[in-house]
Amino acid sequence: MPTNRGFSSIEKWLVRKVQSSVGNPPCEFVLGGTGVASASGSARRFQLLVPDRQTLVKLALDPEVAFGDGYADGCIELRGDLVEFLETVLGSILKAGEGTWFSRLRSRWMEWWNQNTLLGSRENIHRHYDLSNDFYQLWLDSRMLYTCAYFPNESTSLEEAQLAKMDHVCRKVQLQRGERVVDAGCGWGALALHMARHYGVTVRAFNISHEQIAFARERARREGLERQVEFVEDDYRNISGKWDAFVSVGMIEHVGKANYKELGRVIHRAIGDTGRGLVHFIGRNFPHTFSPWIRKRIFPGAHAPALSETGDLFEPWNLSVLDVENIRMHYARTLEHWLSRFEVNAGRISQMFDANFVRAWRLYLAGSLASFRVGALQLFQIVFAGAQCQQIPWTRAHLYEEPLPVQRERKWMTAAR
Amino acid sequence: MPTNRGFSSIEKWLVRKVQSSVGNPPCEFVLGGTGVASASGSARRFQLLVPDRQTLVKLALDPEVAFGDGYADGCIELRGDLVEFLETVLGSILKAGEGTWFSRLRSRWMEWWNQNTLLGSRENIHRHYDLSNDFYQLWLDSRMLYTCAYFPNESTSLEEAQLAKMDHVCRKVQLQRGERVVDAGCGWGALALHMARHYGVTVRAFNISHEQIAFARERARREGLERQVEFVEDDYRNISGKWDAFVSVGMIEHVGKANYKELGRVIHRAIGDTGRGLVHFIGRNFPHTFSPWIRKRIFPGAHAPALSETGDLFEPWNLSVLDVENIRMHYARTLEHWLSRFEVNAGRISQMFDANFVRAWRLYLAGSLASFRVGALQLFQIVFAGAQCQQIPWTRAHLYEEPLPVQRERKWMTAAR
Repeated sequence: MPTNRGFSSIEKWLVRKVQSSVGNPPCEFVLGGTGVASASGSARRFQLLVPDRQTLVKLALDPEVAFGDGYADGCIELRGDLVEFLETVLGSILKAGEGTWFSRLRSRWMEWWNQNTLLGSRENIHRHYDLSNDFYQLWLDSRMLYTCAYFPNESTSLEEAQLAKMDHVCRKVQLQRGERVVDAGCGWGALALHMARHYGVTVRAFNISHEQIAFARERARREGLERQVEFVEDDYRNISGKWDAFVSVGMIEHVGKANYKELGRVIHRAIGDTGRGLVHFIGRNFPHTFSPWIRKRIFPGAHAPALSETGDLFEPWNLSVLDVENIRMHYARTLEHWLSRFEVNAGRISQMFDANFVRAWRLYLAGSLASFRVGALQLFQIVFAGAQCQQIPWTRAHLYEEPLPVQRERKWMTAAR
Repeated sequence: MPTNRGFSSIEKWLVRKVQSSVGNPPCEFVLGGTGVASASGSARRFQLLVPDRQTLVKLALDPEVAFGDGYADGCIELRGDLVEFLETVLGSILKAGEGTWFSRLRSRWMEWWNQNTLLGSRENIHRHYDLSNDFYQLWLDSRMLYTCAYFPNESTSLEEAQLAKMDHVCRKVQLQRGERVVDAGCGWGALALHMARHYGVTVRAFNISHEQIAFARERARREGLERQVEFVEDDYRNISGKWDAFVSVGMIEHVGKANYKELGRVIHRAIGDTGRGLVHFIGRNFPHTFSPWIRKRIFPGAHAPALSETGDLFEPWNLSVLDVENIRMHYARTLEHWLSRFEVNAGRISQMFDANFVRAWRLYLAGSLASFRVGALQLFQIVFAGAQCQQIPWTRAHLYEEPLPVQRERKWMTAAR
């Protein structure tokens, strides 16, 4: 138990500063491993061990980034459950509002620095997705889906839930045998291959991660699907040709809101007024910048939009939004699986990278889990169609029927005359 | 068959002006009942009989309002099917864009004139909903629902579909026996009474239409539900107290986008961070003013928002959008029923009002039907919840299950720890 050596008045002021900027969560500060300052009168479930005054100053200037960097470095330690701590702090940050002037300034700077231009996107994506396929294989499901799964029941396993997610997506876009589908931001190719194999469509799948595309191509070859699925190492902005459906799962987070109108133009060019599509992305209840530490360390250039911000994707092109589903708790569940697999393999991961990397990724996964639990992040699936699309089902009941839609007849919504 | 007396060059210019302002639909003009001008080279499925040059000038200045007024007066006649004509014209107007300078000016003027202040709303609502309960009974379903129905199958009758709509709404907001619900813009009270009778909730239902409230109160008495359902003749802005759920079906169209933030404040005040709600409203694929003729003649102060515009309802209050469903073709089907019942009773209606009224309402119903068919209008149901709401189901499968949810157990989405 650390002893209270008595904080100096400047240290006390700094602690109060840090705490108030994140909405005064019930957390105790321990300085230099020996001193305890209780800046909050409420119950203290967590202790933050801060090594020195300099770290305290950094925390006061930009609490989120300083905590993230300090935690990853190992210089800041937490006593208490990490996920619970992050839930508590995220809940109180949401109420506290704007952040410090320094954090706002840094956030703006990062927005400018990590712009999602053609070149910028390539760099941003490279930094995350080209880390190592072996690393991701240690904690993702066997099919390598790195997006929110869909758990039809609370007892569904992660493997089943990722399969269910792909079917949920395919049903939502009403895939028909022989159709042509474009997949923007295809990851390691699981969805593209699933659509081809189980729904009889041909797919052109785009991704600017070199490692992911190489992996996906090898997989298509191994599964004998290389004639049905073409993996293209290129930017979504270069998608051309006409397609029956446009699908993008987990890419919009990397597009940046400045490019939503451009992405909308690409979608409309691809499906015209008669096609349909689905976008699946991390969003928010209201417009807010993405976590600056996550952008600095994990996802440069990322943004999670509020629904109103996604209007630019559809509205300038007279695309009809047909269905929006928010499955944020499914992402919390998905992240529980990922985090626990990550912990099981933490030893092997620290042999591939270093301890700083392991702690940074632990914080990223735990922080994401906490964010979905407290509702700081949401997960939206939006189904849309061109204004003249004739393939709109009367109801959504077909999404919840067995057997899978590929095996049965469909009834389209037609204007009854 | 009218003969071509040869249009003067100014008349030809006016006809070209009218046609180009609405995107050159395949329509022939007949002036004074004797002359034919073919301003369009394409197939002519419709003939518009315009009595004189003055009407032509009005059409050139503001085609939509002049056509609506002329059609209602009986001075403009149409040869061809009215709904098909309106579908064709609406399709081409969508492509033509902005409208004439005069129509834009008039539209702005009407926006200012018919503002939805507390007093303005009362006047706007009075002009439509207080017309006569007997009149609406002639063409609505037996339960008097004047909003889009929900047809689980294409063969569902209007009566069944209005019942299904109410259950769809109740399931979406997950009503539980004993809960307290506020209904904003309750019409003749059908939904409030249905919720009370079949879901065991108590309801306070608001409406500023005096006739509708009187009708609803009488109905509650007759059905022995006056202790469970209170009908209040007051504006949504005066809703107070805490409620488990907020429901509003077909009111947002009359709120006006200037008041969405205020409505959001009212919703959040009513359900706090733990309740849930549903809004059901006519919307659009992109922001656009409501038809000026409909606003002039049928619905003063009306606006159908694009989804991005409805952000003001939820985002300032950290309300989570959980589910958006677009059922526009269900409104087309609903309007087919209403229009055909209206026509069956046109004789009786013209005894209650006059021929101008009958033609205006025929045009309004036909125009609405055409708008939903071509996608100029959409119908959105948005389910939302406060940020701390614990009553969010894992999936939407329960919406498509029998028996009705009131009779069975429910499983809530809970953060798994």
